[in-house]
Amino acid sequence: MKVLIVGAAGMIGRKLAERIAADGGLGGQPVEQLVMVDVVEPKAPGGKIADIVCKAIDVSASGATEPLIAERPDVVFHLAAIVSGEAEADFEKGYRINLGGTRDLFDAIRHEHGRSGYKPRVVFASSIAVFGAPFDARVPEDFALTPLTSYGTQKAIGELLLADYTRRGFFDGVGLRLPTICVRPGAPNKAASGFFSNILREPMSGKEAVLPVADTVRHYFASPRAAVGFFLHAATMDTSAIGPRRNLNMPGLSATVGDELDALRTVAGDAALSLVKQVPDETIIRIVDGWAPDIEAKRARDLGFTVEDSFEEIVRAHIEDELGGSVRAPA
Amino acid sequence: MKVLIVGAAGMIGRKLAERIAADGGLGGQPVEQLVMVDVVEPKAPGGKIADIVCKAIDVSASGATEPLIAERPDVVFHLAAIVSGEAEADFEKGYRINLGGTRDLFDAIRHEHGRSGYKPRVVFASSIAVFGAPFDARVPEDFALTPLTSYGTQKAIGELLLADYTRRGFFDGVGLRLPTICVRPGAPNKAASGFFSNILREPMSGKEAVLPVADTVRHYFASPRAAVGFFLHAATMDTSAIGPRRNLNMPGLSATVGDELDALRTVAGDAALSLVKQVPDETIIRIVDGWAPDIEAKRARDLGFTVEDSFEEIVRAHIEDELGGSVRAPA
Repeated sequence: MKVLIVGAAGMIGRKLAERIAADGGLGGQPVEQLVMVDVVEPKAPGGKIADIVCKAIDVSASGATEPLIAERPDVVFHLAAIVSGEAEADFEKGYRINLGGTRDLFDAIRHEHGRSGYKPRVVFASSIAVFGAPFDARVPEDFALTPLTSYGTQKAIGELLLADYTRRGFFDGVGLRLPTICVRPGAPNKAASGFFSNILREPMSGKEAVLPVADTVRHYFASPRAAVGFFLHAATMDTSAIGPRRNLNMPGLSATVGDELDALRTVAGDAALSLVKQVPDETIIRIVDGWAPDIEAKRARDLGFTVEDSFEEIVRAHIEDELGGSVRAPA
Repeated sequence: MKVLIVGAAGMIGRKLAERIAADGGLGGQPVEQLVMVDVVEPKAPGGKIADIVCKAIDVSASGATEPLIAERPDVVFHLAAIVSGEAEADFEKGYRINLGGTRDLFDAIRHEHGRSGYKPRVVFASSIAVFGAPFDARVPEDFALTPLTSYGTQKAIGELLLADYTRRGFFDGVGLRLPTICVRPGAPNKAASGFFSNILREPMSGKEAVLPVADTVRHYFASPRAAVGFFLHAATMDTSAIGPRRNLNMPGLSATVGDELDALRTVAGDAALSLVKQVPDETIIRIVDGWAPDIEAKRARDLGFTVEDSFEEIVRAHIEDELGGSVRAPA
């Protein structure tokens, strides 16, 4: 089979490609060709797939995805997006890439469907940013989409298009509302959500990290490993059981910052914990206050999607996947 | 003040224009200019407004609405859309007009906002077609948008854009999820919902009408007069009380076909009732089965939107507005 990953240079896209290349297949079927595209050229992972094609394309450029779809990949993973902060800072760029790029890709598939009956599985990376406060302690399964950012709006529109294009029979789509991904690898970034990862990742490398909110703050998480699992399952599952509501709340771990810190102490000890410095930041406190503390995901769990049960599990996944299996003890 | 109605040749747009022209104002403020556009040139109503401009434009043509917005109308009513059946039959036309036309209009306002700080009230005609079965006996206020038609999808996307453009400060938007409008004036049409009006309107003119479903079928209604009231209220209300969720379930009357028939008998007698012929139609039964029997609209009611309390009231509004105050008794 042929697999296309649009947005393959991002954190999840890269890990997804690595996993498919390592497995040499998807859902038990061999993958003969893996095509990886992003606005910067992705790096081909090692593994069992001989034919890996990496290209730099701008998904929002007219006709950019048509040649990719003309190759008729069996599975299309669509993760390309500019992130929340940038979509908020640059209105036109956000709509051009996150809405325009998604619509162009879906239309490229629709056109190929019209020519040849082509009907791939399409897995779309959405986000819990489609939900906006106020909400209850747990966002119900069928809650309204009332995003409070342009990014969330663009993802919600992508979901609506995905559902309608699927209903029309142009492709077989599954939209994944991803929890906040934690522990994010790499350097600390300026995203308002960055501290959730920083306070675990940095101390495990012997570095200090700033905690800008109270440790009672509750939010909804999944590890990068679990997120890759969501995409693999969505690509290979029997979609006839989903019904017309094709966009699914992914399962996540509802946990507090205190739960994170407990897991850090268990795994890396008191010395690591002491590297976390509480420095309240009113701006971040206000932003995080608008995020969902918990989200119902019974439908996705019933459909076979799985996630970590504890922050200790999330931290151990990070140590295995990013730190070669062991924590560097602080001096 | 200046008022623009986009989609002014449709049933509600025409009645809205007639009402504004008859009043000579909006919310107690005089209207100096009323601009009416549609894909066919609307007819100027009589009344107290000297300066009424009627134009035929295609909202989906590039830049079509820019010159209208350059005149900086204080209130923009956006009702232009192709209907559900046509949007389902012609996928590209539906997206071009219902999504593309809406986005172009909103962007024209955004551009003028960027140039001059212009920030009009925008009232957008959405529909309960944004909701799709399965749902409970009463659709809750904050229920997910899971449309089962391309029309409903396009309206849901329009709602998301309206909310985001409002949040961004480009305009001050209010989206109205309209109930099924009953009694629709004019000749019977082929819409699946047409019978709800036909079984009242036709017998009141001494003509037969076909009832294709059981009289236990329950649905959600408002009269054309109430719908015009929704638009007038949305144009003039204090929007600061709405909050970020700018798209509102309009109040409606949840009633059965039996309730309709009872009202017909009360108002027009047994002879009128005998003109309604039960001819079950499996296709229509199936379609109607997917429609909401009732919708929670507490937010809109609290914000001052009002609707009829009984089908007798809906029927009497029709007689006053369309039949000159009296029913033609059947021979």
